[in-house]
Formats: sequence, structure tokens, C-alpha cells
Amino acid sequence: MLRMNRLKQTDLYARGSSLQVFGSDPELTSDFKVPDGENATALDENFFTFPGFRNFTANPSDAPLVTTMRADLSNFAALDGLGISSTLVVAPPGTVNPPHVHPRASELVFVLEGTVDIGFVDTTNTLRTQTLKEGDLFIVPRGLVHFQFNNYQTTAKFINSFSSASPGVARLPTTLFGTGIADAVLIKSFGVTADVIDKLQEAEGAGTQPGY
Amino acid sequence: MLRMNRLKQTDLYARGSSLQVFGSDPELTSDFKVPDGENATALDENFFTFPGFRNFTANPSDAPLVTTMRADLSNFAALDGLGISSTLVVAPPGTVNPPHVHPRASELVFVLEGTVDIGFVDTTNTLRTQTLKEGDLFIVPRGLVHFQFNNYQTTAKFINSFSSASPGVARLPTTLFGTGIADAVLIKSFGVTADVIDKLQEAEGAGTQPGY
Amino acid sequence: MLRMNRLKQTDLYARGSSLQVFGSDPELTSDFKVPDGENATALDENFFTFPGFRNFTANPSDAPLVTTMRADLSNFAALDGLGISSTLVVAPPGTVNPPHVHPRASELVFVLEGTVDIGFVDTTNTLRTQTLKEGDLFIVPRGLVHFQFNNYQTTAKFINSFSSASPGVARLPTTLFGTGIADAVLIKSFGVTADVIDKLQEAEGAGTQPGY
Amino acid sequence: MLRMNRLKQTDLYARGSSLQVFGSDPELTSDFKVPDGENATALDENFFTFPGFRNFTANPSDAPLVTTMRADLSNFAALDGLGISSTLVVAPPGTVNPPHVHPRASELVFVLEGTVDIGFVDTTNTLRTQTLKEGDLFIVPRGLVHFQFNNYQTTAKFINSFSSASPGVARLPTTLFGTGIADAVLIKSFGVTADVIDKLQEAEGAGTQPGY
Amino acid sequence: MLRMNRLKQTDLYARGSSLQVFGSDPELTSDFKVPDGENATALDENFFTFPGFRNFTANPSDAPLVTTMRADLSNFAALDGLGISSTLVVAPPGTVNPPHVHPRASELVFVLEGTVDIGFVDTTNTLRTQTLKEGDLFIVPRGLVHFQFNNYQTTAKFINSFSSASPGVARLPTTLFGTGIADAVLIKSFGVTADVIDKLQEAEGAGTQPGY
Amino acid sequence: MLRMNRLKQTDLYARGSSLQVFGSDPELTSDFKVPDGENATALDENFFTFPGFRNFTANPSDAPLVTTMRADLSNFAALDGLGISSTLVVAPPGTVNPPHVHPRASELVFVLEGTVDIGFVDTTNTLRTQTLKEGDLFIVPRGLVHFQFNNYQTTAKFINSFSSASPGVARLPTTLFGTGIADAVLIKSFGVTADVIDKLQEAEGAGTQPGY
Repeated sequence: MLRMNRLKQTDLYARGSSLQVFGSDPELTSDFKVPDGENATALDENFFTFPGFRNFTANPSDAPLVTTMRADLSNFAALDGLGISSTLVVAPPGTVNPPHVHPRASELVFVLEGTVDIGFVDTTNTLRTQTLKEGDLFIVPRGLVHFQFNNYQTTAKFINSFSSASPGVARLPTTLFGTGIADAVLIKSFGVTADVIDKLQEAEGAGTQPGY
Repeated sequence: MLRMNRLKQTDLYARGSSLQVFGSDPELTSDFKVPDGENATALDENFFTFPGFRNFTANPSDAPLVTTMRADLSNFAALDGLGISSTLVVAPPGTVNPPHVHPRASELVFVLEGTVDIGFVDTTNTLRTQTLKEGDLFIVPRGLVHFQFNNYQTTAKFINSFSSASPGVARLPTTLFGTGIADAVLIKSFGVTADVIDKLQEAEGAGTQPGY
Repeated sequence: MLRMNRLKQTDLYARGSSLQVFGSDPELTSDFKVPDGENATALDENFFTFPGFRNFTANPSDAPLVTTMRADLSNFAALDGLGISSTLVVAPPGTVNPPHVHPRASELVFVLEGTVDIGFVDTTNTLRTQTLKEGDLFIVPRGLVHFQFNNYQTTAKFINSFSSASPGVARLPTTLFGTGIADAVLIKSFGVTADVIDKLQEAEGAGTQPGY
Repeated sequence: MLRMNRLKQTDLYARGSSLQVFGSDPELTSDFKVPDGENATALDENFFTFPGFRNFTANPSDAPLVTTMRADLSNFAALDGLGISSTLVVAPPGTVNPPHVHPRASELVFVLEGTVDIGFVDTTNTLRTQTLKEGDLFIVPRGLVHFQFNNYQTTAKFINSFSSASPGVARLPTTLFGTGIADAVLIKSFGVTADVIDKLQEAEGAGTQPGY
Repeated sequence: MLRMNRLKQTDLYARGSSLQVFGSDPELTSDFKVPDGENATALDENFFTFPGFRNFTANPSDAPLVTTMRADLSNFAALDGLGISSTLVVAPPGTVNPPHVHPRASELVFVLEGTVDIGFVDTTNTLRTQTLKEGDLFIVPRGLVHFQFNNYQTTAKFINSFSSASPGVARLPTTLFGTGIADAVLIKSFGVTADVIDKLQEAEGAGTQPGY
Repeated sequence: MLRMNRLKQTDLYARGSSLQVFGSDPELTSDFKVPDGENATALDENFFTFPGFRNFTANPSDAPLVTTMRADLSNFAALDGLGISSTLVVAPPGTVNPPHVHPRASELVFVLEGTVDIGFVDTTNTLRTQTLKEGDLFIVPRGLVHFQFNNYQTTAKFINSFSSASPGVARLPTTLFGTGIADAVLIKSFGVTADVIDKLQEAEGAGTQPGY
């Protein structure tokens, strides 16, 4: 009797289990991948744990950009071949996560605290934007340009999960205006004069910026 | 100058980008999958949003089991083909998420609040357990038996992300002792007497239980 | 004329070829994978052959469990990257292959001799059981809990083919009760008293057991 | 103690589990695929069973070719999306399974009875041949030309497992000389005169032939 | 003898065949995918042919952008499930193919005539540029920002092949400044003043632009 | 206004983007694969460029076969893991590219100049042939037997793109009659007398031949 109310979730799942859908991971042919030069038996529980997100806070000097930290193949080797990774984002009021793409993953955003606006542009040039509140999930399909903006009064925190252990990221302001693409290409591509391109390049001139 | 401290993350990433590793998602050949009978242009931002986790709390009648809610293909259609989904778990003190397997996904656990013990058993029969604190990530490789246990004084909450839009779940106490597997099979398999099997079956007799 | 009766099979296949279905293997970008430190030209026909199943018989001391032998990546290197492997099982009367999961493969059972009962439980907690006779095929979908039981008078033999070169196996009696999972977790998960868990653990105490 | 000798297989597997290898199946996001127009709950154990191989015997009129029967997507719908299928072959003395390719699968041969010669040609034009005895396994990598020949005194039977639910087959004598490819193409390609091509085409003229 | 000089290519290939590399296509479980509502037997040779690139020429009103035409799932249904597609590009002197990404494919460029500059930016913000002449191939890894520029005196033509039947494209000038992303997001992201963003948006104001 | 005529292609693409189709590449978890022993930062633009097709011409001694050159993993390392490669073919009047299969790729043919006949045989033994003119595309589904024939007055050139970085090739006249397959197998398989087989083997006797 105690458990009867729980039957409903199982019922829901029964419907999920009959969906005739596809999409999944190629994967290891072992339980996990032992890093080169290591011994499987020496890989204890800490190999499978990433404590780096504890007490993560915003770096004020990042403003007006958000502060981000990744947990992916570059710093959490156990993810190798398992098709998943995460980035933690802290967005003080007024900060943005600038338009960017992840070439190798879809992104599932979960809002830990606060409110944040999110948007993505699909390959038909349709922009979809949403205001996310604490507890909300939002899915950004693979490879699409997207951004986040905290246009609210309190700091927002969200954790982004990716469908790859190494999603990669191209933050577009830097990619376009901070890597040395020839002025002529940019002037013709954006349909603006050289001084407009100069201003965009100057803004990126101080260095590259992170930004999942 | 403001951005120099951020260069370090980019440097880290440069190393990631030279890793010669494999593993990723088969995927859609469109940005996202339009559900049967729907029109792509009518899919607005709400199609990509799942608000069902807002204000999710423990159901006291679930004790000594945790309370869980999934966001996967069964209730969040936009995930279809994008290789990712989530489950939110609330674990009051003393509750367990019983040993279970997800046949179609690895699981990346992120602790939202509290402390929780986690363990998994690999295919060499090695058990690895860890105590996770708020902010910690832990990876459970695909298809392995695992469980969580809040052996602490405060409620724990964690969000599990999966490397499939439909990971599936087999909660083993129910799978083994609540589905009608013949007594003779269980007696011989577990090497115990009939009365031990009876007790295990009785415990599952009131119905099936959820439990990612 | 001699061949006209064979046209029917081709006709059957024509229908197969028009099925709009999906699902297949990622694979090598070479014909086969040369093991590290070996030379492709030195890999003769024996590299592609596994003679280990010849004259395989039951080990009486395995009772009441079946006797099994695998041919997978661990002992047949040529399978690497080719998405297939096998296990040979000999089941004297009264023996079981205890409930287990293969985290990385579906299993196609072919009965070589005798009669055997098989069952699997899907993720909606539905048990399906079947009595297989010599010559029968039975498919166990990937990652699901399944078992076999020879409840008949003569020895049964069957060969299980897997959709991975390294399916892996978690025999659940050992996984759950022979690897050191904390008593508190098991007591709460299975809803039984400590002495029931003790008996289950004792039965696994003499060591781990194989069992595809 | 009774189980100590079984520890060795587990040890073997531990090594397998640390192999850093890749290759696996894309797969369903449900346990199995419900055929269009059917209801998941109505799919009982017979859906997962293929009894068509029972008592399968050679068709004398097939000589000098082997007699074959497939169990794949065309006649065993439960395999859909599970990445595996089989063909049963009966080869009376003197019969051949002519050179053929499976465009979508590797093939793992298991000899049920008798002795049979097998050969495949890789993409460097290297022929590898082997004589297989009862109980032997042999792997033919995906997409390569291969054949079997019973050059012995008793009937051979073998079951071929494939790493796809629908491997497909192109029997090359028919593909090349029984489908209407222009004489000029064949004459130039094979470097022979028109009368040689004529004889090859005549031999295929009575119809197409099966032959996994 | 006549054929001895050709042995060298085979030798080269032998080395290729021993490479221990990975990466390939999930694929159909039929030879090709029959479009919904069509009959496999009615699909003649024209279904597999795309004549739309014949006599393709530049549209002068596209300047300073290149003129492009795709052959992908949207207009060549036989590609479905086969993991490949193409775009033909005609680039008169002075035209650019503006920075863009294909979320679902790598791109292999082959120069049909003329000379063209190409560049891509990887996820470490490294720009690589090359001047391609008639007959050259250049590979752009999946999902990375890239562009082409004919900075020469004669018209260039090139054909881009993609590792997906539906690569998708996001032309970044339009994606960023022609889809309605909020000014505040753009101002903060690009670190420029509102009037700079205005000019970029005006340039995209007349409508969206094609551009593989 | 200038851009309004271009809106049509975007419209077309909008339809493509709503297609509910599948099929794509497993891929790297880095932007590209750094060859063993090399350093990512040292890989400049030349690593991504293949100039070997420049000024490629027919070798007269290849007649009556076409002259081919590949650009795949064996000679263009940057393709590794990116799921695409190419072969350039020059076909003087009267030459053929003999029946062959690529075990690991579909092939998209693009005619650079001239006219050429192409044909493939599917696994239902249906032959489809087409006459391709300059600018035409033609798709050969993965793993199927196909050939090309220049039955016209001028040299034809075409570039074949593959959905794998290493498609592999088995040229069937050589595979069948130039690798040492036993006469008895060939006689029975092709249903012809020994002297016919002798003539086919003699034609291949001078050595192996390339031929994508």
C-alpha cells in the first residue's frame, strides 16, 4: 500500500519504454577507460570523482561575462568514452555567457539558483529565447549558437551537462574577432566598414576569454 | 589585462583538444526531432523547456527509499535524438536509492545539497564507494550496478545526468524479486533456501517501486 | 529450373532490403585491428580462429550453476572493433545461469542441444519467459536482466552471441551480495532484516563465480 | 572452495575490462523496438523467439551449393535495433557457399558439426583460409569477400552470427553475372573474351540463388 | 607487366589497411532508405542521381558573397542514412563565403577551378589559413568556424563534401546579427557600443543569406 | 532587396531541418586527431591540405582500366576520425573501373568532365545504371558492388567522396581470380568448367590492380 502511489512513475516509464526512437552513444568495450600508463586496479573511487566545483564562485573581474568552470576530458579523465561532461556557470546580475557553439555536444541546462535568460538560433535562423527559473531544464541541440544572460537582480547559477566527454567550445566574439581573420574577409562577411571591424577586434585584443 | 587570468582555462583546453580520444553520439540529421504529427515552426521555446523539477520535494511515504523524478523521452520530447537526459533525486536522512542499472547510459551525479554515499560495482566485481559533498561530481560508467545512500543528518539532493535521452532503469530488488521469476531459479542462483527467497519476494509484493 | 525454388528466399530478402530501419556498428577504418606490437602481415588464419570451444564440457563442481566459456576480447583479439563475440554454455539438468546483465550487448541465444528455460525482465518490470528447444533462437535486448534454467532431464548446450566484442557481465547474486555493499544499503533496498542479507552474503562468501 | 576454480575466469575478465578498446552499437532508446501498428504490451515471449531453424536440413537440389536459412529483420522483427542476427548453413559433402559479401556486418562462424574450409580476402588482396572443425569459431571482418567449402566426407553445419540485424548479402556469381551488367564492362573488367563472359552468364541464367 | 606499376598503390593501401584507427558511420539496415509513401521497386536510377549542379553559375546579385547550391537531404532523398552530401560553390573575384559552422559534419573542400583562400578556427582559438589551387583538397574538422575568400583575379569553383547527409549551416553574420538576439546580449558579448551593434544588425536587415 | 532571392534556399533548408531522419558520424572528442608522435601546436595548415590531386592525368598503361588516386588515411592523416575521404578518377574513352566494393563507405560521385556510365547492384540483385554528365552527382549506397564505364568519345574525370576516412576497396576480378582461391571453390561457385576459371585467373596473373 505504501508503495502504490509510486506505481504511477513506473506507468509513465512503461510508455517511454515503448517509444520507437533512436540515438545513443558509441562506447567503450570496457567498463571505463584506463588512462595510458595507469593500472586499472589502482584506479580507486577518487578517479571517478570530481571535487573541483565545490564552493565555486564568480570572479568579479570576469564581468560583464559569466564565470565558468568545466569538468570534461581535460581535467576529469574518468569521463573518457562515457559520453557526458559538465560545466558550472556563475552569472552575477548583468553578466552574459556570450554566443558560442559546442561542436561535439547537445547541452542540457539546469538552473541551480536565480533566474536567467537563454537563447539559441537554429539552422533556419530562428531564435528561441526563454526565461529559466530555479529548477528548470532547457535543451540546446547540438552545435547550435546559444547564449545566456542574467538580466535580473540576483546571481544565477546553472550547471550545463553535455552529451560528450569533450564538447569543445568556440566563443564567437573571440573566434571571429580575436584570432586574426583577415579584415577583408570580415568587412565583406559582415557588410560593414573597416572601422566597425576595428572596434570589434579591439574589444578582443586583450586576450582570449573562456566561456562555455 | 582584465582577461589575462582567464587565459589559463583556454590553455587547459588546448591540451584537451589534442587528446586522441574517441566516443560520441550518433545524432539527428536535423537540429532537433519534430514529434510525429507536429509542425516544426509551431515548436516554440516551451518545447525545449522542462519546468517539472521546480519545487520538487521528497514524498515521505517513499521512505526508506529516495524520491525521484525523471526528465527524459517519456515526458520531455525535445530530448529525442540529443543523447542526454536527467533525473532529480531527493534523499532524506536514512534513505537509499536501491541498487539498479541503466541499460542505455552512463550517469554523471552532481550533488545539489547535503552529503550522500554512492557506490558502483564493475564487471570484475570490484566495488567502489565514495562520500559526495555538495558540489561534487561522480561518474557511473554505463550499465553498471550502482546505488546511493544518505547516511547523514540532513536531506541530500542530487541531479543525475545521463548520456542517453532514454537511459532506462532496472531497480534490482524489484526486477529480481517482484516480477515473478521462478523460485527454483532464485533459490539456485542465490544459493539460499526457499524461505529466504520468500522474504525477499514479500518485500516486493506490495507493488513495484520507482528509483533511478 | 533447379534454382527456382531458391528464388523464394531472395524474395523474402527483397522485403528486408526495403525496411526503413536503423541500427548498426561503429567500426574500424581498417579491415581488422592489428594488436599493439604486432605486424599486420604476420597475422595468419590462426589469428582469426578460436579453437577453445572444442570439446567443451560441464565442470561438475559448478553445479547448481552452468559451466560457461567466453570467446571475446579477453581471449580472441581478432574480434576487436568487429562488434561481435560468443559464449558457450553447458547446462546439466537442474543447473541455472543466474540472473545477470551484459552492460554492452544484446544476446542472441541458439540452442545446440537439449531444452532450456530462459527469461528476461524489461525496464517496465515485465518478465518474459520461454522454453527453448534445440535449434531455437531467442533474443535478449541489451542491458536487461536475464537468466537460463535447465529444468529438464538431459544436458542442454547453447551458444550466446553478443552484439559487442566485449559485452561484459555482472552476475547479480555476486554483484549484490559478494562485493561488500554495506549491509544498511542492502537491508533498506531489499526491505528485509539483517539476517536475510547475511544468508545471501554467506552464499557468495566462498568467492566470485563466472557466468555469462 | 567449490567456487575457487571459477575465480580464474573472473581474473581473465579483469584483464579484458582494462583493455582500452572501442567499438559498439548505436542502439534503441527503448528496450526493444515495437513494430509499427503493434502494441508493446501485446508482445509476448514468442515475439523474442525464432523457431524456424528447428530440424533444418539440406535441400538436395541446392547442390553444389549449400542450403541456408536466415534469421534477420526480414523474418525475426524483435532483432530490430539490437545489432545482431544469424544464418544457419547446412553443407553436404562437396558443396560451397560461393564468394559473397555482407555490406553491413562482420560474421562470426561457429561450426555445429563436421569440418569445413573457410576463406576471406582482405582489401590488400591477401587470402586467408582455414579448416574449421566442430566447435571452432572464425571471424570474417565486415564487408570482406568470403566463402565456405565442405571438401570432406560428412555433412557440415555451421551457424553464422552477424553484427547487424540486417547484414545483407551479395552473392558475387549472381551479382556479377546474373543481373545484366553490360558485356563490355565485364569483358574489360575481367580481361577475358566474350565467350568466357557468356559461359559465366549462362550459369546464372536459371535464376538467382540464395547464399549467406 | 602492364600492371606492375599499379602495384605501388596497392602497397600504399596495405599500410592503410593496417592502421589501427577508428571512426565510421552508423547506417541503415537496408541498402538505402525508401522515402515514406514510396515503393522500393519503383525507385529507379534517377532516385540515386542529382542533376541540379549542371551548368551552375554565380548569381551576380550575391556579391560580395559567393553563390552556393546544396545537394543534401532537403533536395536529394537518396542520401538519407548514407552519411554524405555536397555543396557546389562559385566564387567570383572578391567574394567571400562568410564565417559559418556546420553543426553535423566535417567538410572536405575540392577546388574545381581557380584559387581560393580558406581558413578555420579551432576550439583553442587557433586560426589556420591556406591558399588552395585547382585540384587541392582541404579538410575542415566538424563543427568548426570556417570561411572562404577569393582574393584572386579569376572565378573559383569548389565542391564541398560533408560527412553527413544533412550537415546544416549557421552563417554567423546572420545568426548573430539578423535573428533578433537582444542588443544588451550583443553589446556585452562583443564589448562594443550600441552603435557598432546597430551597424552590424543593419547589414543583415534586408533578410537572411544562404551560404554553406 | 538584394538578398530576397536568396531567401528561397533558406526556405528549402527549413524543410530539411524538420526532417525526422537519422544517421551520422561517431567522431573525435577533439577537433582533430594528432598523429602519434606529433605535437598539436606544430600541425600547421599543410597538415589539413592534400595537394596530390593537382595535374593528375591518366596513365596510358592502365587501359582498359581507369587511372585512380586516393586521398584517404593512407596518405592524408588529417582525415582521421572525420568520416570523409576522396578518390580522383580519370577515365579515357573505353576504360572501365571494374566491379568493386568499399566495405566501409557510401560513395558520392561528382563528374568533373565528360560523360560516364555508372551502375550498382543492390542486395536484391537489382542492377541500376545511369549515364552521368558533367556536373552530375550519383550516390552508391554503402558496401554495394558498383562500376563505371566511359563508353564515350572524350576522357571523363570524376571525384568520388566517401563517408569514411578509410573506405577500403575490393576490386572483384582480382579478389576472386587473383588471390589464390581454390579452383574447386570457383568452379562450383560460378558453375563453369575449369578452363573458364583458368582464363579468369590468367587475366589476373600479371599482378594486382588498383581501382576505386
